[in-house]
Amino acid sequence: MIEHHFPVTVYYKDVDQMGIVYYTRYLEYFEMARTECLRSIGLSVTDLEGKGLYLPVSECSLRYHRGARFEDRLDVCSQIATVPRARLTIDYTVTDGAGQTLVTGRTIHAIVNKKGKPIRAPKILLDAIETHLTGEQI
Amino acid sequence: MIEHHFPVTVYYKDVDQMGIVYYTRYLEYFEMARTECLRSIGLSVTDLEGKGLYLPVSECSLRYHRGARFEDRLDVCSQIATVPRARLTIDYTVTDGAGQTLVTGRTIHAIVNKKGKPIRAPKILLDAIETHLTGEQI
Amino acid sequence: MIEHHFPVTVYYKDVDQMGIVYYTRYLEYFEMARTECLRSIGLSVTDLEGKGLYLPVSECSLRYHRGARFEDRLDVCSQIATVPRARLTIDYTVTDGAGQTLVTGRTIHAIVNKKGKPIRAPKILLDAIETHLTGEQI
Amino acid sequence: MIEHHFPVTVYYKDVDQMGIVYYTRYLEYFEMARTECLRSIGLSVTDLEGKGLYLPVSECSLRYHRGARFEDRLDVCSQIATVPRARLTIDYTVTDGAGQTLVTGRTIHAIVNKKGKPIRAPKILLDAIETHLTGEQI
Repeated sequence: MIEHHFPVTVYYKDVDQMGIVYYTRYLEYFEMARTECLRSIGLSVTDLEGKGLYLPVSECSLRYHRGARFEDRLDVCSQIATVPRARLTIDYTVTDGAGQTLVTGRTIHAIVNKKGKPIRAPKILLDAIETHLTGEQI
Repeated sequence: MIEHHFPVTVYYKDVDQMGIVYYTRYLEYFEMARTECLRSIGLSVTDLEGKGLYLPVSECSLRYHRGARFEDRLDVCSQIATVPRARLTIDYTVTDGAGQTLVTGRTIHAIVNKKGKPIRAPKILLDAIETHLTGEQI
Repeated sequence: MIEHHFPVTVYYKDVDQMGIVYYTRYLEYFEMARTECLRSIGLSVTDLEGKGLYLPVSECSLRYHRGARFEDRLDVCSQIATVPRARLTIDYTVTDGAGQTLVTGRTIHAIVNKKGKPIRAPKILLDAIETHLTGEQI
Repeated sequence: MIEHHFPVTVYYKDVDQMGIVYYTRYLEYFEMARTECLRSIGLSVTDLEGKGLYLPVSECSLRYHRGARFEDRLDVCSQIATVPRARLTIDYTVTDGAGQTLVTGRTIHAIVNKKGKPIRAPKILLDAIETHLTGEQI
């Protein structure tokens, strides 16, 4: 399992009139978290795109257990459990400072070229993920 | 089936550097669409909240089939198929001007009071949905 | 004066924990309003970009007089008062259903090519604005 | 002068189809930066609101000099130069990793109670700002 932790602080921009984080904002947190998760295993999204490799979200799902509030400090844990074939799957768990789970979610990414046509997961992507999956298992 | 159509035009604010609508924006479109869907059956979200009834999203999921582009004119179709018990489920289909399906999704809403405590679906909500579900079936 | 009215409804996505529209959202309303204002005088932003003409914002300012609330129905009035030379200036007034002014603002746009280099305002832009300015003055 | 530096990384959510940060996003960066600037002088916005003190933006302005791009690492410098009387003024400068100025801006905040009525700047706010302004000048 590749696992990466990303800290997020909740600001006014994130909070709705119920006083809790608006439901779309977690998908922004997920995007930030996975960008840094990929970077942590040597994959810069900018570099991947420069090489003609894009990872648009093809599916996502979220479960909202508890609401986060303004100035809360959250942790977004990203997990990659498998080497992608046609698609890359990433799971997320958002917890608050007390370790309570607030939101869980998943994004599934297509692997496409600049024109949006599906391509086989390239070696650079496979190698980075395989190396880090294997590394942990040893 | 309660069915409601809501038009959305894509603006710069919605589009990312791939030239397609960023994945969170569809959840904003869903929120606009369901607010108007509920209004179309006589339920104002403002009035419901004034009565102490809140409908926070407890789960959502989306499938992205095709990307929408700047200045595209979309239709967001909201569907309510069942009378809510503990939760209200709404399904969405986003299509473009040519009738192609771009995105499908679902939101599941808890029914809570101002403190966030689950409550039974109140009569005003049940009646509005039942009436419109039944109306169509006749 | 070129003047265009654009209706906006306030949704949950727009409102912060003070219960009023978050301050960035008016800049989104302005973007929607000016896109439609330009379209109303025959200028499609998509077409302009297809011709290599971009109008990035180089300056903006806003004054917030009163807060708008969830489900408020607003009018965003865009005004273009002068033919652009190096820059295009657009003024905005947001009013509520009672005609009260909520927010006023201005955006100033550079006129650039795809590489971001300033260019002279092209004939297509000048003609559309001159025609509609003159038309009103007669 | 009270001066505070806040790091921001640009993500996909921030970038438009020109490949640069969409113009509203800097106002979000400003909000994050000033929240942390105030915290750095002992003022928690959550605590202030708990005491019935709100600081809604009454005016703002921005100048966009250069566009920031995906995965750029920016610095948002917030500056408070004067003790507020009726209003609190904060200036911002966004620079990139090479020290180039990308965006400058200002927000002016009303000082109001929960009902939105202007109030005199309370002692807690004045003291925090005076102390830190004076501290630097000695």
